[in-house]
Order: sequence, then C-alpha cells, then structure tokens
Amino acid sequence: MKAVIFDLDGTLVDTVYAHTLAWYRVLHEAGIHVEAWKIHRLIGMSGGLLTKAAGHEIGRDLAETEVEQLQTRHGQVYAELLPDRRPLPGAVDLLRYLRTARIAHGIATSGRRADVKASLAALEVGDDLVVVDRSDVARAKPEPDLFLACQERLKVGPEECYVIGDAVWDLLAARRASMLGVGLLTGGYGEQELAQAGAYRVYRDPAELLSSIYQLGLRTSE
Amino acid sequence: MKAVIFDLDGTLVDTVYAHTLAWYRVLHEAGIHVEAWKIHRLIGMSGGLLTKAAGHEIGRDLAETEVEQLQTRHGQVYAELLPDRRPLPGAVDLLRYLRTARIAHGIATSGRRADVKASLAALEVGDDLVVVDRSDVARAKPEPDLFLACQERLKVGPEECYVIGDAVWDLLAARRASMLGVGLLTGGYGEQELAQAGAYRVYRDPAELLSSIYQLGLRTSE
Repeated sequence: MKAVIFDLDGTLVDTVYAHTLAWYRVLHEAGIHVEAWKIHRLIGMSGGLLTKAAGHEIGRDLAETEVEQLQTRHGQVYAELLPDRRPLPGAVDLLRYLRTARIAHGIATSGRRADVKASLAALEVGDDLVVVDRSDVARAKPEPDLFLACQERLKVGPEECYVIGDAVWDLLAARRASMLGVGLLTGGYGEQELAQAGAYRVYRDPAELLSSIYQLGLRTSE
Repeated sequence: MKAVIFDLDGTLVDTVYAHTLAWYRVLHEAGIHVEAWKIHRLIGMSGGLLTKAAGHEIGRDLAETEVEQLQTRHGQVYAELLPDRRPLPGAVDLLRYLRTARIAHGIATSGRRADVKASLAALEVGDDLVVVDRSDVARAKPEPDLFLACQERLKVGPEECYVIGDAVWDLLAARRASMLGVGLLTGGYGEQELAQAGAYRVYRDPAELLSSIYQLGLRTSE
C-alpha cells in the first residue's frame, strides 16, 4: 500500500459535534425538525446533500436557493458554537510521521474551502499538502469522487490507497473507489456501525492508528 | 411486567448533543481537553460524575469546588446552546398512552431539578407524574439508585420494571437494579453498543417503541 487519504472533520479535527448542533439549530429555525442523532449520522456528506437528506427525512423537497441559504446560515452558527478547533489526539503527529517517512498522503473533505483552511492551520501542515475539497469535484461523499481526485493528485492507483475516516460515508465511498477504508471512533459512531460499512480496520483515534501503523504495510513513495 | 421507568435526556427530549457540546466547551475552558466523542459517551451520568470522569481521562483529580463550578458553568452554556428543547418523536404520545392505559410509569434522571422542569413542560405531563432526579438519591447512574427510588415510588417490584434509556449507563444501571433495559437510538449510540450493555430490546425512538408496545407485555396496574 502506497498512500493514505484522510477525511478531515471528525477524523483529524474534533468538529463533528459542533457541526451536528449547528445543523440541528439551523434546520429547526427553518422548520425542518430532524432529530440530532440523525443529523449526526449525516455529517460527512456535503452540506448540500445533508440539507436535502434532512428535507427528505420530513418529506419536503428543498429548493436550491433554500439549500444555499441554509448552508450559509450553518457556517455562521458553526463559527459561533466552536470558535476554535482542536486536532484530535495524534493527528498532528501522524501527519508529521507520514511527511518524514515520505509516505504519500492527502486530505479529501466534503467541507468548504474557508472552513477547511482553519482546520489545516490547527493541524500545522504546509501548503504542499494535497487537499481536495467540495469545490474540486461535482459530487461529494458517499460518491467516490473526492477520494478519486485525491488519489490522482497523489499519483498512485486506487487499490494502493487507504481511506481514513470517522463516518460511514467515508467507508462507503472508499469501497466505491476500490480503496480500503479504515474507521476511527472519533466521530462518535459505534465500532460496529463502521465495521458494517466495510471498515478494513477500526482504530480509536489517530494516535492509536499511528502506534499501529506497521499493521498497514505502507511503503515509501519513490 | 407492570411498570416503565424512563430516562429523560436523549430518551424523551432531544438534548444529548447540546449537553455534549456544552460540556466540551466548559471542560476546554478549564484546560480539561477531552474529545467530544468521549464526552458524548459520558452523558447520562450526573454532571458531577461526568466531570470527574473527564478529569480522570486526562489524569487529573478535580477538587469538589471545581466540580461544582464546572457544573454551574455547564448549566449556563447549555441554556445558550439550546434555548428550547423538543420532545423526541413519539415521546408525548407514548407517555399519554401509558397514562390512558393506566400502566405505571415514571422518570428517573441524572439531571438537576431546574433543567428537568423545562423538559417536563415540553413533554406535556402533569404534576402527578412520578419523577426522581439527581437530588433524590445519593448516587447517580451507573449506580442503580435512581431506578430503585422510582420503582419504590411506583410501588412495584424491580423485576416487574422496564427501564427505557438511550445510554449505556441506563442499561448498566438497569441490570444492577434487576430490571430489564430497553435501548433507544435517539441518544446517538450505535445499536451494538446498547446491545452489548445488555439491552433486552433496542428501538429507534419512542415512536417505534409505542408502535411495538405489545411486544413488552405490560399490564395495567390495579
């Protein structure tokens, strides 16, 4: 195996619960009454898909303009709820290890660029890190496009890539991209939920992944 | 079976995610850096136990005064994050059904009285409902005291009671009280986590429990 592709929110930075509560509040403001535990399980999709899925949950088709407005409002509420973001345990060390060991790696996220930037700053990574975000592809997770775009930029084959993610959507998208998905518990899913979505392995957090990295058989890129 | 004892937060009202984020923020303010997914899995314990468990997680023993201050601060932040609370789907109907069918039932919660009051108002229950809260017992969940105190007030035997809860702590406390625990997914735990903690059955939410109530073999109280 030659490369590691990371999800961002909930996998490297501790943001899933703030995203969940921000969506909960924004959707309720708009009269879309969906329970928080269901919203939690939609995080990892793009904001657009999440909004449509929430509408679907209560039997309402949302217009594109409404979807766009809700996403903007989510950005505002999210920033209020979580003024600063923290890397998950081991995330900074894991990225540093891969850099030092010259193992190809990148980030593929359903997030929007402005939000992604703040997370990357917290992770202390350089501008040379390969990052693919929502604006780079036509369709977000659970479509495989984000991971495939990242893999192309890393110049490796899909079957040589691990995808590291905290959400069922990461693991489902990894399978559709012919990659091996590795689950982390840091997003708040149960271990069994990740295993059922096809996780090749499940670790507690980036720190446990780093301490077990020999299990993954990663090779230095030429 | 003659009685149903309900947990409150995450079981009847949709408050777990706001509690999680409020604790996350309050603990981080105090320099206690615990990840949100771990805090999520501590919800359902009393605030005091949760605070101590969070301190333990980072290897710090917290003084009683600090624990008390953190709980007060949590109350403030929680109220800001979730100005109004919503019943979970089916919760109001389920309580109404039990009332109408004259099946003994009550609420046993690790919450504090002021917070509990606001939730009871949202659930449209009368003052005659048996409610046991943190101030009624010496030790909160996962100790069985809350459920045993509720069962005594309902005047039934422990082995005649179901406990309905969303958290692993409810199910563990139910077993220690010799009651049968029924899990709901509304608190955001995975089904397997609830089953592993000893759930006799797991339902999606109060609505699914109500539509399946014949499975529980409940009898009208004399």
